Amino acid sequence: MAYHLLQHDRKGAQHLGDALTSALASVRHCRRCNTFAENEICERCASPRRDASLLCVVETPVDMNMMEQTHSYHGLYYVLMGRISPLDGVGARELGLEQLVARALDGVVREVILATNYTNEGEATAHYIAAMLQPKGIDVTRIARGVPVGGELEYVDSGTLAQALRERRTCSA
Amino acid sequence: MAYHLLQHDRKGAQHLGDALTSALASVRHCRRCNTFAENEICERCASPRRDASLLCVVETPVDMNMMEQTHSYHGLYYVLMGRISPLDGVGARELGLEQLVARALDGVVREVILATNYTNEGEATAHYIAAMLQPKGIDVTRIARGVPVGGELEYVDSGTLAQALRERRTCSA
Repeated sequence: MAYHLLQHDRKGAQHLGDALTSALASVRHCRRCNTFAENEICERCASPRRDASLLCVVETPVDMNMMEQTHSYHGLYYVLMGRISPLDGVGARELGLEQLVARALDGVVREVILATNYTNEGEATAHYIAAMLQPKGIDVTRIARGVPVGGELEYVDSGTLAQALRERRTCSA
Repeated sequence: MAYHLLQHDRKGAQHLGDALTSALASVRHCRRCNTFAENEICERCASPRRDASLLCVVETPVDMNMMEQTHSYHGLYYVLMGRISPLDGVGARELGLEQLVARALDGVVREVILATNYTNEGEATAHYIAAMLQPKGIDVTRIARGVPVGGELEYVDSGTLAQALRERRTCSA
């Protein structure tokens, strides 16, 4: 890309350079949800139409967008910008989890929904956060694991099926 | 396959024909779980080591094998040998659901676990069975829906994510 810009599109290169410099100068982290934002508080956190009693914890801004695309969540978010990953030297301190705890204890949040990935690191992160928040009297929930919508048992891996069996739920009448 | 057998493997063809004929004569449905069996009661239903208070309802013998491969289920099964599918002319009567009801009301079964697929037909079948059994005082549960084990939010469809959010559960401390 660099060669192409330097050889064929020097104006484009200038434009890209300016855009990056200005993004670096203006994009920061929202003081409430920690996602990328141009203002101190991002639009979503500032919106009076969101349910401030729900706080959904996700790993990345992309995951936040995924949650938004379901059109079934109307609470607020906290974006970790990572996950606990000892092999990469990322522990609770590096992830800044005390900022999340402070955010969750604002007195308005009633329930923290952990929507980290169902990978090992995501699971470890969720356990760690639950252990931090539950003693403070906050309801901590985790998005469900199981068979995906439209899924057939024949094509589901046995780990998922075992989990779906373990977490079976009573049918509503 | 037929051409190959007739041209190159006439002995194999005879063998296959005999095997099919003998299977047709000896394979029938287990009187208790409805799966294929060579005896009146299949080995699994006859085993004293299975937990007879749990009855897992699946669509096909393949699904039963999938459940067995999880190594985390030790109850008994009922195999529907199909699913409710109005477009194919299969309703509750064609599926023989009254046989399942009789099986579930044997006095030993405490919980019926519905492990039909999460397709439209599988869901309809599960709802129908739940509506038949719940008034009789049997606990009816459904395997969990949600994000598969190892799954990342970024690659999960939004229907599954919405479901996982709706069916979120309290973290165990």
